[in-house]
Amino acid sequence: MNKRLQVDEWNIIEEGFQADNQRGSESIFSLGNGRFGQRGNFEEKYSGDSLQGSYLAGISFLDKTKVGWWKNGYPKFFSRIPNAPNWSGIHVRLIDEEIDLAMWEVESFQRRLDMKEGISYRDFQVTSPKGNTLKVHVEHVNSMANPNLCLIKYSVTSVNYNGKISLVPFINGDVKHETANFNEKMWNILRLGTSNEYAYLWAQTKHEDAQASFAMTYQLFRNSKEITTRPIRIEKEKAVGFSAGSDIKSNERVTLIKYVAITTSLYYDRQQLVDQSVAQAKEAKAKGWDALIEGHKKIWKQIWEESDVLIEGDCAAQQGIRYNIFQLHQSYRGDDPRLNIGSKGFTGEKYGGNTYWNTELCCVPYFLIASPKEIARNLLLYRHRQLDKAIKNAQKLGFSDGAALYPMVTINGEECHNEWEITFEEIHRNYIIAYVIVLYTEMTGDKNYMAHYGLEVMIAICRFWSQRVSFSQPKQKYVLLGVTGPNEYENNVNNNWYTNYTCVQTLKQTITYLEIIAHEYPEEYNIIRRKTSFQYAETNRWKDIIDNMYLPEDESLGVFVQNDGYLDKEMKSVTDIPENERPINQHWSWDRILRSCYIKQSDVLLALYLHLSEFDTETIRRNFNFYEPKTLHESSLSPYVHSILASRIGEIDKAYELFLHATRLDLDNYNNEINEGLHVTSMAGSWLAIVRGFAGMQLENGTLNLSPVIPNQWQRYIFNFHFRERLLQVEVTKNGTNIQLIKGERITLKVNGKEMTIE
Amino acid sequence: MNKRLQVDEWNIIEEGFQADNQRGSESIFSLGNGRFGQRGNFEEKYSGDSLQGSYLAGISFLDKTKVGWWKNGYPKFFSRIPNAPNWSGIHVRLIDEEIDLAMWEVESFQRRLDMKEGISYRDFQVTSPKGNTLKVHVEHVNSMANPNLCLIKYSVTSVNYNGKISLVPFINGDVKHETANFNEKMWNILRLGTSNEYAYLWAQTKHEDAQASFAMTYQLFRNSKEITTRPIRIEKEKAVGFSAGSDIKSNERVTLIKYVAITTSLYYDRQQLVDQSVAQAKEAKAKGWDALIEGHKKIWKQIWEESDVLIEGDCAAQQGIRYNIFQLHQSYRGDDPRLNIGSKGFTGEKYGGNTYWNTELCCVPYFLIASPKEIARNLLLYRHRQLDKAIKNAQKLGFSDGAALYPMVTINGEECHNEWEITFEEIHRNYIIAYVIVLYTEMTGDKNYMAHYGLEVMIAICRFWSQRVSFSQPKQKYVLLGVTGPNEYENNVNNNWYTNYTCVQTLKQTITYLEIIAHEYPEEYNIIRRKTSFQYAETNRWKDIIDNMYLPEDESLGVFVQNDGYLDKEMKSVTDIPENERPINQHWSWDRILRSCYIKQSDVLLALYLHLSEFDTETIRRNFNFYEPKTLHESSLSPYVHSILASRIGEIDKAYELFLHATRLDLDNYNNEINEGLHVTSMAGSWLAIVRGFAGMQLENGTLNLSPVIPNQWQRYIFNFHFRERLLQVEVTKNGTNIQLIKGERITLKVNGKEMTIE
Repeated sequence: MNKRLQVDEWNIIEEGFQADNQRGSESIFSLGNGRFGQRGNFEEKYSGDSLQGSYLAGISFLDKTKVGWWKNGYPKFFSRIPNAPNWSGIHVRLIDEEIDLAMWEVESFQRRLDMKEGISYRDFQVTSPKGNTLKVHVEHVNSMANPNLCLIKYSVTSVNYNGKISLVPFINGDVKHETANFNEKMWNILRLGTSNEYAYLWAQTKHEDAQASFAMTYQLFRNSKEITTRPIRIEKEKAVGFSAGSDIKSNERVTLIKYVAITTSLYYDRQQLVDQSVAQAKEAKAKGWDALIEGHKKIWKQIWEESDVLIEGDCAAQQGIRYNIFQLHQSYRGDDPRLNIGSKGFTGEKYGGNTYWNTELCCVPYFLIASPKEIARNLLLYRHRQLDKAIKNAQKLGFSDGAALYPMVTINGEECHNEWEITFEEIHRNYIIAYVIVLYTEMTGDKNYMAHYGLEVMIAICRFWSQRVSFSQPKQKYVLLGVTGPNEYENNVNNNWYTNYTCVQTLKQTITYLEIIAHEYPEEYNIIRRKTSFQYAETNRWKDIIDNMYLPEDESLGVFVQNDGYLDKEMKSVTDIPENERPINQHWSWDRILRSCYIKQSDVLLALYLHLSEFDTETIRRNFNFYEPKTLHESSLSPYVHSILASRIGEIDKAYELFLHATRLDLDNYNNEINEGLHVTSMAGSWLAIVRGFAGMQLENGTLNLSPVIPNQWQRYIFNFHFRERLLQVEVTKNGTNIQLIKGERITLKVNGKEMTIE
Repeated sequence: MNKRLQVDEWNIIEEGFQADNQRGSESIFSLGNGRFGQRGNFEEKYSGDSLQGSYLAGISFLDKTKVGWWKNGYPKFFSRIPNAPNWSGIHVRLIDEEIDLAMWEVESFQRRLDMKEGISYRDFQVTSPKGNTLKVHVEHVNSMANPNLCLIKYSVTSVNYNGKISLVPFINGDVKHETANFNEKMWNILRLGTSNEYAYLWAQTKHEDAQASFAMTYQLFRNSKEITTRPIRIEKEKAVGFSAGSDIKSNERVTLIKYVAITTSLYYDRQQLVDQSVAQAKEAKAKGWDALIEGHKKIWKQIWEESDVLIEGDCAAQQGIRYNIFQLHQSYRGDDPRLNIGSKGFTGEKYGGNTYWNTELCCVPYFLIASPKEIARNLLLYRHRQLDKAIKNAQKLGFSDGAALYPMVTINGEECHNEWEITFEEIHRNYIIAYVIVLYTEMTGDKNYMAHYGLEVMIAICRFWSQRVSFSQPKQKYVLLGVTGPNEYENNVNNNWYTNYTCVQTLKQTITYLEIIAHEYPEEYNIIRRKTSFQYAETNRWKDIIDNMYLPEDESLGVFVQNDGYLDKEMKSVTDIPENERPINQHWSWDRILRSCYIKQSDVLLALYLHLSEFDTETIRRNFNFYEPKTLHESSLSPYVHSILASRIGEIDKAYELFLHATRLDLDNYNNEINEGLHVTSMAGSWLAIVRGFAGMQLENGTLNLSPVIPNQWQRYIFNFHFRERLLQVEVTKNGTNIQLIKGERITLKVNGKEMTIE
């Protein structure tokens, strides 16, 4: 853990320049608008350690798989969102010097991310080796209002320099991807060009032939007056730009506004890409900075009105939850079922921008409560669109008859991961996809999705489970051998409780909805039945599995056993590990981690959280008390789940500690990996820790119940949520709970089990 | 399985040219002399599919590790013996054509490896696209008498061609290594040069700075007369050679003899390498082909006199066992403790020329009986020299206090493998190193090695086991969690019976020898005690582990259980797998293999074989009958072990079938992987299947007992063996066993438990 940012309710503030923390800061100050995003790289030249990163939603590259020892079944490719041409660079040159914070003396430095308005500010004063001192002020916006626009205002004030200054806005297609498997460059430049007014660069990914065009215009100001000198046009093999100059004296200021428009083949005809990007860049300039910023701020205002969580009395928590909400909205707009949310969003290369089960575990439940249902529905449709590939994926592993295994890691539906213990064995991922279909249906009360799409997916998943279980003679039970559960610090185990339990849940829920949909949507039912060649007799085996699945349990301890053999381990507590050996995944060899009792992320406890209403409080308490002390939370998916359970069993202090962990994971760099990017998807978990944990939101027989508690540290908290076409607001204080209907018709809820109608 | 070679007692014969089998044939016709070796590549140009391979003993390269997902503890490098400059090339050019069997019409083609004399012959007739027909005869020898010399005689007879012909002997340093992790070239050329008389190429591996020099001289003959035309000298950036021409008419013959001398920095000062290689190439030419070949044949004659196994009545078996003995002697001379035996010898790139536990499992027991004890002792010393690195290797994984974990894969003692389930978890490898120390001591009756070297290694291994076990509360026993046993089709299992059992054996044997050496070699004992800081009190824990180790056993089945959870699997037989799905490692995804009951190689049965005298026949029979039907033998280390056990329980037909599998594994390409090279180390196992299986050789309380049986198919078999400074010969016929003393003093042995003295 490493606390270096200032605590503030609406801002993320970094004071002082730390070259050795540059990558971490670049992650923290990432900006996005759901269509593209970028790390907080300096606009000007920077020769120090840095991870240049700009990413376009849905634009992927098929990298060749890299493994040491090939295992049959591995995919040939690893898809990833490649580092895109850098569109935000602006070099600053004096006569024979160029600003470079790694080489110049940095006299002051501040970064501030204003989350309320969605603007990143940077202010610094630097002196060159020759003694020229400049003050710089930068504003950087990825427009939420015009999702193809990136806007940068770059101002340089001379402190003691008199002479020529050039600002060089550019677009550079000669980018590398640090984690490319074979050091390959991922883009070909198709064409580039400049006029006095605009510049553009048209590029194509090397294998998949996705395309993007980046166009820019600019305005130059001396002090506050626009100047229109003829720029030097820069056209290199892979880069394009301008050098726009002016004379400057002490206390004078030169400002450049860069308007960048980005169009991709996901949204435009390829032949239109250049024209569209150029037109939009021109249009942006015509509209001007102030009007564009106004539009951008307005969108953020709407987002916060709908999505803000107020926490009074705890500035660190307030800042953390707002940061997480901010990053979620920067990463995903919810309007396109072809897109998903990379587990690092647009903030780093790790995980390649791919979709993991994180989306279903954290983001779908978040959007399902925090937003109108269409957003969650688009995330569900993403998986439905990829069902065919999930069936092919299962075939590759020896399954048949329409059984589906969803990929662990994917962009276009094909598995692209290559660790056998995960790729082939972390099969529980199938469940969460079924789970959110049911969750969507229950939370919205709308069976339409189930009837048209959901059931088809669930049948395919059941078929997988049905073939994947085997029957143990000694146990006289169905077993699931050779799996990796959510706790990835156990690999290739037998009878992972989570996996076995959720296998049964899928089968049960599917049978339930088969009957409901057959009854209520006979036409849709028949369409799905024909499409999948489903025979109702298939459920006989499913029922047999439901009745005879092995679910390891230790009666003397009163707990569910994570997996076969778990109790043979030496039982220790996380507090037994010396602080300098944590996170253990950065210090211990893999085998040592595997044979320890330590848990990366909730496993039994995760199943309890997903099925809270199925377990009594004492069962939850016993399992929590057994597993939580062994849990390292070295996965970002873990602390929020434990926080929710702790709230439910009345361990509010523990719940608060875990909430803070979940909420400030990146801001305080708990897992010492912030340099790689943000844990964007799990940020949704911190919101769930408030709403489903502290506020105790739970659907019970179709009625929503709240059982709010409030941590000691807080005076009050307020959040909004969507439920069945209503928008409601909950305020929890030390004295009680107040619920208001903001939009929609009256509705009956329960608070602490007591029904109340909200008007 | 693919039978394409002719069966012959002393020769390996391939008739007809098969371009799609070229890689496999190159493996089969590999040649070596223990110092260098090469695949059976064509000397002339060949543009078809081929794996060019030439390798130098002990000359390794540190390739960067390639993995998809890094795990803590992985080594940074993968050491490998790089593909060396190609020293055996001879191009054949007509005026404007060049022989290339991939492009010319091949009218006849035969390869023959004469194992008796160690010469590879190739005869073919080809016609060029222009209609020129040539007959070619090639003899290729890697000299056993002069271990720096490779000798090639290349004769071209014109059938219908009249004109100029050029033979172009060359050395080419521009080689690639197909399995290089990052396509890196591995050699730098330091210098090369030609005179009219000789050419040389001096090269250095890129990272490790090992060096080699390759020099050649040649003679050219027209019909049988030497001609001395001035050749064209070829000096390219990375290649060197001559173009030596002559006119030729129908029925005339041109012959080139190429003398190549190879010197490496393992045996020469670097500054001497070029001079030495040039001098030796010149000297070879001066001596001439006939004399050199005579010397070479003489060595092979001696080898066969000592090492031949005669099998009467079964030509396939006869050929197979000779091929294996031949390849073992080609791969290893036994005179240098810095060298070991790569599991593919010098016959392919796979496994990188590295040492695996194969050496101790197959080769040490072989050499210990088949050869004077010094050879086995050198293999033991190889590991003793690497003890410090084994201790460092264990430290890297979290062990301390002088505990050693020998690497799974190594050249210089450092682990270089990178699959966590093997690198970190296949820890049973430690045992076989202790096992052969004890075996050596018992078979030779000589405790000198134990006192000076062996005990030190065994203490370090015991310390590893002592730290690696943990105590299971539910079982109230010591357990070994998270291991991979010899059966690599189970990964990361608990309580692998083999590993647990052999852990106990190491501790027991070490305590036994600690006491013997303390008593008989007090001075050496004290030296080792001081060197290792050994305290006798350490054995208290060892004894506790010996007494309380968990050894899974199923009483109702009467078998030892391979590992926890094994019996939960669906029990099937290998015969249930469709033939077109075998070998399953080429058809099934890894998870499917792992959760099946199928066994790659003996595991429980291997422990029984290694400790035959500890188990009664009924126990062996029950376990054999349970495990053998589930065993795929997809490891070359497997069939010979099962064959020996089958012999011991009187299942002679089964023993014979498994013997044939072990013995003709490569000739008949059982595992469909002959293209990658030969299974050199496991070839020793087929000899053990005869001597320890059919002949039933077993040391019992210091006396050697033989209980011979003879397969139905055989009339008679004869083999020699070394035992305590004697060389003995055993002849087994249908009527009985005859043992003769060839060298050394009289000795008492047992046959079928009956003592007899051999004079």
